[in-house]
Amino acid sequence: MQKVAVFPGSFDPVTRGHESLVIRALSLFDKIYVAVGQNSGKNHFFACEKRVNWLKEVFRGYPSVEVEQYSGLTIDFCRKVGATYILRGLRTSSDFEFERSIGQVNKMIEPGIETIFFLSMPEHTPVNSSIVRDIIRNGGDPSPFIPAGISIREGIE
Amino acid sequence: MQKVAVFPGSFDPVTRGHESLVIRALSLFDKIYVAVGQNSGKNHFFACEKRVNWLKEVFRGYPSVEVEQYSGLTIDFCRKVGATYILRGLRTSSDFEFERSIGQVNKMIEPGIETIFFLSMPEHTPVNSSIVRDIIRNGGDPSPFIPAGISIREGIE
Amino acid sequence: MQKVAVFPGSFDPVTRGHESLVIRALSLFDKIYVAVGQNSGKNHFFACEKRVNWLKEVFRGYPSVEVEQYSGLTIDFCRKVGATYILRGLRTSSDFEFERSIGQVNKMIEPGIETIFFLSMPEHTPVNSSIVRDIIRNGGDPSPFIPAGISIREGIE
Amino acid sequence: MQKVAVFPGSFDPVTRGHESLVIRALSLFDKIYVAVGQNSGKNHFFACEKRVNWLKEVFRGYPSVEVEQYSGLTIDFCRKVGATYILRGLRTSSDFEFERSIGQVNKMIEPGIETIFFLSMPEHTPVNSSIVRDIIRNGGDPSPFIPAGISIREGIE
Amino acid sequence: MQKVAVFPGSFDPVTRGHESLVIRALSLFDKIYVAVGQNSGKNHFFACEKRVNWLKEVFRGYPSVEVEQYSGLTIDFCRKVGATYILRGLRTSSDFEFERSIGQVNKMIEPGIETIFFLSMPEHTPVNSSIVRDIIRNGGDPSPFIPAGISIREGIE
Amino acid sequence: MQKVAVFPGSFDPVTRGHESLVIRALSLFDKIYVAVGQNSGKNHFFACEKRVNWLKEVFRGYPSVEVEQYSGLTIDFCRKVGATYILRGLRTSSDFEFERSIGQVNKMIEPGIETIFFLSMPEHTPVNSSIVRDIIRNGGDPSPFIPAGISIREGIE
Repeated sequence: MQKVAVFPGSFDPVTRGHESLVIRALSLFDKIYVAVGQNSGKNHFFACEKRVNWLKEVFRGYPSVEVEQYSGLTIDFCRKVGATYILRGLRTSSDFEFERSIGQVNKMIEPGIETIFFLSMPEHTPVNSSIVRDIIRNGGDPSPFIPAGISIREGIE
Repeated sequence: MQKVAVFPGSFDPVTRGHESLVIRALSLFDKIYVAVGQNSGKNHFFACEKRVNWLKEVFRGYPSVEVEQYSGLTIDFCRKVGATYILRGLRTSSDFEFERSIGQVNKMIEPGIETIFFLSMPEHTPVNSSIVRDIIRNGGDPSPFIPAGISIREGIE
Repeated sequence: MQKVAVFPGSFDPVTRGHESLVIRALSLFDKIYVAVGQNSGKNHFFACEKRVNWLKEVFRGYPSVEVEQYSGLTIDFCRKVGATYILRGLRTSSDFEFERSIGQVNKMIEPGIETIFFLSMPEHTPVNSSIVRDIIRNGGDPSPFIPAGISIREGIE
Repeated sequence: MQKVAVFPGSFDPVTRGHESLVIRALSLFDKIYVAVGQNSGKNHFFACEKRVNWLKEVFRGYPSVEVEQYSGLTIDFCRKVGATYILRGLRTSSDFEFERSIGQVNKMIEPGIETIFFLSMPEHTPVNSSIVRDIIRNGGDPSPFIPAGISIREGIE
Repeated sequence: MQKVAVFPGSFDPVTRGHESLVIRALSLFDKIYVAVGQNSGKNHFFACEKRVNWLKEVFRGYPSVEVEQYSGLTIDFCRKVGATYILRGLRTSSDFEFERSIGQVNKMIEPGIETIFFLSMPEHTPVNSSIVRDIIRNGGDPSPFIPAGISIREGIE
Repeated sequence: MQKVAVFPGSFDPVTRGHESLVIRALSLFDKIYVAVGQNSGKNHFFACEKRVNWLKEVFRGYPSVEVEQYSGLTIDFCRKVGATYILRGLRTSSDFEFERSIGQVNKMIEPGIETIFFLSMPEHTPVNSSIVRDIIRNGGDPSPFIPAGISIREGIE
């Protein structure tokens, strides 16, 4: 049976931590959907189209990675694409507490889908999209924290 | 002396965790006020009236439970109804850090009122109102997480 | 029905935090058993007899407090003395994680007994018995951290 | 390429949490080695032979699960059996902090091996081997927490 | 070489914890800039001018303390005023996780600047600006939590 | 006035994290005592003499660093050498909770001494002496985690 995973997130914007995670998970799955959530209850910094395009650029060389956008429950997107795994990274223990709640609730709703976690690399552990947005907002250079070859600055409105 | 407790919260919406907590605390108190906060600095998902009505429905069979709404400091509501205990549940360690700050500050303002805590049950530990709202927002079915017999969906505007 | 609580611990030695907790819980319970555990898997710094005597001294003026020693499961001691509550204090979030595990397991074994928690006071939050033992071991003066009127130093062997 | 994982631990004793974890991970791996560590710096409650035998009993019906004992670094055992994944469960945020340190250090020593994590189920979240040992030591009944069909009590010396 | 530190924050409003921290850090630095951030991505409760004026009032008697407002990256403000240290207080472990991310990212951007931390005093540990704002919003008296001699109430619009 | 700090620890053995911390703190203090505790209640893996000698080797090129051993309270050692600062590193939030307790208790005993904290560098965050000992105990190579130029292996008995 094919092993299909969904890596859901806002990717607002994509970071080197996201990139590293997907690449390290490649050997475990036949297909990984990087799924850009359109969460109706949340304002995004970058337009969904830009976030999707950056991800497509980052994972262009990886045929088993597909970038898609979705709305609704992550669990429903998994069912739609036939995924039985949700892939997530863990950086800090506050991350963990949040992820545990979401992961256990998802498992209650759909017992056939497991969330599995990879650790962030030490050099990516302090960085998340929220900090990258803060750097951008305050006129700093986000390039050390985002994947090489994509230009976030052009995306700022 | 009567033992009176206030269980303050947003209850936006009430969860099975809230229901379980109040029922388990019944034998400890002569009266429990389930107090729905009208926090001016916070937007609510469900209108206050709905949140109050659901709670009244949930605790209809329990004569020692009273559902009320309040604004202002929780401590002031306690004074008003003659409560000397604040009742709270603890699910996660981030909950705890937040609750400890609020509880210790309340004790500094009013030393005559103690906050006491019950643990969530394991099956309710992953769930809070915020996750229930996310499920609703994304078109999922919240019914496994809310008390039996109330219909949250009707409350959605 | 009488409200009976057990406050279990090693009390190796008793601290001002323990003292404060019991006194603040007095109004909630008809009787509080301060129960000194004889945990076979644990080495103690002070002999059980000394720990018990200090506690008796500390709570001498409180007729609803009884000091006892016990071995075996805390739950079994509760059953023996007819207690339906276990009383515990919470200082830090690592405390909380440990207490949640123990409390939820106890509830699985005996659903009729609830663990309830009080917060430490801010000035007692940094102190526990282990730090007091370290102070003693290194020749420091533990008296600011232990109840007035008891002399820990005499107990050191 | 075969996907081989090592699930290392003391299993002192095996819990329902361990059992659940391996069974949920079966579909992700072609082979899972449940590897019982002989950590020279640690005293064990149950003899290694007993811990191994219980695990063999628990996973008897699962041909892709192999139970082995090992000493030395987990990374070295992975190399020996050709595993490129280490499998671990996460219950609490203190678990997480510990696991992150170990996992990131293992990755520094051997970049070719990834640690991946599954969440404990809510009903297993409060329980670990250390609590089970405490229950046994204090004369309680550990059977709700250990896999059905194995008899821990016979193993107690 | 002069030892210059920046203590950045929103100070919305200043608390006794902020005051205590700066005073305790005075002997370590030749100059401390209390730097009021104009974070474009954040709404403030009190106008910047008021926050700055209160801080000037609080630190009036301390010639080595300078109050300034800034926008942009904290690191850039440090460079502008020649500071090689960022000063921060730590109250809780969720504070810590947040501060570690910010501090490690700042160090990646500018290796010549170190963040150093002081602990909150036990009596200030439960209080932060957010709780003070909540007290004000709900009609409570914030004066036990803000420095003596300043009148927050006048600042409320 | 001279700024003197004590960096207390077991250094069992010294890690790259310890080395990095002291070097980054050099510009803040006129003198740093690296103080090797002889904690009577704790068994050490390496003999005190070896731990001291490794530290002397590591900090040989830094005239403002002095390596000493001490027993008794850290606070008493600070008084003896005229230090008014205790220097500590923070890696994880469990570190933080422990350090906060010790630091606040030390401040209660001796208000004239402040504990100040530096963050670990991301690459050192997962590593502490306990993990290094585990690597050694299990036959692994600890050299990536200990300062260049010292040979831990010779110290193993």
